[in-house]
Amino acid sequence: MSAAATGRLIGVGTGPGDPELLTLKAVKAIGSADVLAWFAKEGKRGNGRGIVEGLVGEGVIELPLYYPVTTEIHRARPEYIHQVTGFYEASTRAIAEHLDAGRNVVVLSEGDPLFYGSYMHLHVRLAKRYPAEVIPGVTAMSGCWSQANLPIVQGDDVLSVLPGTMEEDQLVRRLTDTEAAVIMKVGRNLPKIRRALAEAGRINDAIYVERGTMANTKTIALAAKPDDEAPYFSIVLVPGWKGKP
Amino acid sequence: MSAAATGRLIGVGTGPGDPELLTLKAVKAIGSADVLAWFAKEGKRGNGRGIVEGLVGEGVIELPLYYPVTTEIHRARPEYIHQVTGFYEASTRAIAEHLDAGRNVVVLSEGDPLFYGSYMHLHVRLAKRYPAEVIPGVTAMSGCWSQANLPIVQGDDVLSVLPGTMEEDQLVRRLTDTEAAVIMKVGRNLPKIRRALAEAGRINDAIYVERGTMANTKTIALAAKPDDEAPYFSIVLVPGWKGKP
Repeated sequence: MSAAATGRLIGVGTGPGDPELLTLKAVKAIGSADVLAWFAKEGKRGNGRGIVEGLVGEGVIELPLYYPVTTEIHRARPEYIHQVTGFYEASTRAIAEHLDAGRNVVVLSEGDPLFYGSYMHLHVRLAKRYPAEVIPGVTAMSGCWSQANLPIVQGDDVLSVLPGTMEEDQLVRRLTDTEAAVIMKVGRNLPKIRRALAEAGRINDAIYVERGTMANTKTIALAAKPDDEAPYFSIVLVPGWKGKP
Repeated sequence: MSAAATGRLIGVGTGPGDPELLTLKAVKAIGSADVLAWFAKEGKRGNGRGIVEGLVGEGVIELPLYYPVTTEIHRARPEYIHQVTGFYEASTRAIAEHLDAGRNVVVLSEGDPLFYGSYMHLHVRLAKRYPAEVIPGVTAMSGCWSQANLPIVQGDDVLSVLPGTMEEDQLVRRLTDTEAAVIMKVGRNLPKIRRALAEAGRINDAIYVERGTMANTKTIALAAKPDDEAPYFSIVLVPGWKGKP
C-alpha cells in the first residue's frame, strides 16, 4: 500500500442475524479489513459485531461507534437532532482518520446497509471524499418471511414497507390500499398496529416475527399472540398474493 | 439415508446476480444437493443456474424447469392461467418424485425466493407434504441500490414496491403518496413510468438500474437516459430520506 493512497470505505450488510446468511463478499471484506467499525449501545457489542464473530482477522483495529443516549427525547426536537448529527459527524471523523492513513475501513450494518441502516449516514458524508463500496445484505424482512415460510408477494402485488411509528389512521389507510405489507419498528406500537390491522380487515392474515433467523426467534399468527410484548426489531408481515395459479 | 425417509426441499435465493452475493448457507445447500432444479426459458440455462456455476457438485441431477411459452397471451386469460398452472403442477410432480426417492432437492430462485420468485408456486404445493426450508437471498432491488450507492430509506420512510405493469393513474397516485419507491418490471412500461414520475414530481430523483450487480450492468439518472430501451428486469429507484440528520 503506497503511503499516498487513502483507504477504502466498505459498508457491509451482515444480514438478518444467522451468520450463515452473510454473503461470500461480506466474509471476504470482513476478513481483509484493517479497521472494523460497528454501531452499538454504549458498552455493548452490537448485533452486527455479534453476527461476524469468528470471521474477524487478528490485528484488526476495532472501532465501536456508540449511539448517544437519546431515549425519551422526541425525534423532532432540536436536542435529538443535534445529538444524532454530532454522533454521525464524530463517527465520520474517526473513520476518515483511518482512511487518510491508508487503512481500509469496513462498517458493519445489520440487514442491508442502505435499507434503514445507520451506515448510510456515514456513507453520504464519506463516499464523495474516499473510494467507497456497499455490499448488500439479506434484509431482516426477507429473513423473517423465509423463516415463517410465508410467500410475501407475487406477480403484480404491491408491497408497502411501513414504520409502526406511523399514526393509526395512516396505518389503516395504507393497509387498506396494498396487497402486502411489512410493518417495521413494532415494539410498543403493537397495540396500535393490531387495531389498524383489524380496522383494515387484515388482522387474520398477519404474522408476527421476533428476531428472525436468530437462535431465540419466535413466529406466531398475530391474532394468536397472547400479549403485546414485542422488541423494537420485531416485524409484522401481511402477505399478498391473491389469485395464485 | 434410510429408504423410508423422504428428501428435503430447499428453496435457495441466488441473490441479484454477482455470485459473490450468494450466502454461505446457499453455497452449502447447493454443494450438498442431490437434485438441482432451476427455472429457465426452453433450451436456456436460466439466470439462477448461471449464478451458481462452479458451485455444483459432481453427480448432481440437474432438473431444468422450462416455462411454457406464454408471450402474447394476457395474464388474465384462461389459457394463460391454464398453461402456467399446468407448468407448476408438472414441476411439482417432477420434484416430488425425487423427494419420494429420498433425494434432497434444491430449487434455485433469483434474488429472494419468497419475494416475487417462481419458487413460491412450488413451495405452497410441496411444503405441507415434505420437509421444506427457504434460504433467503439478497433481493435484486438491494443489489441495485447498493450498486447505485443510493440510500433508499431511512427512519420513518415508507417504501412502496410497485410493478411497472400498473395503470398510469394508479402509479401516479402511489408515487405521490410515498417517501421511496422501487418500480419493478420496467421493460416496455418505461415510457408510462417516466410520465407517471413526472406527473408525481419525482422524475428528477429517479435512478434507472439495469442488470444490477451483473457484469454488464448500467446505472443512470432516469432523466438522463436517452432512450426507452429497457430489459424486463430493470428497476427504477426513487429514494426517500428527507430531512436526514
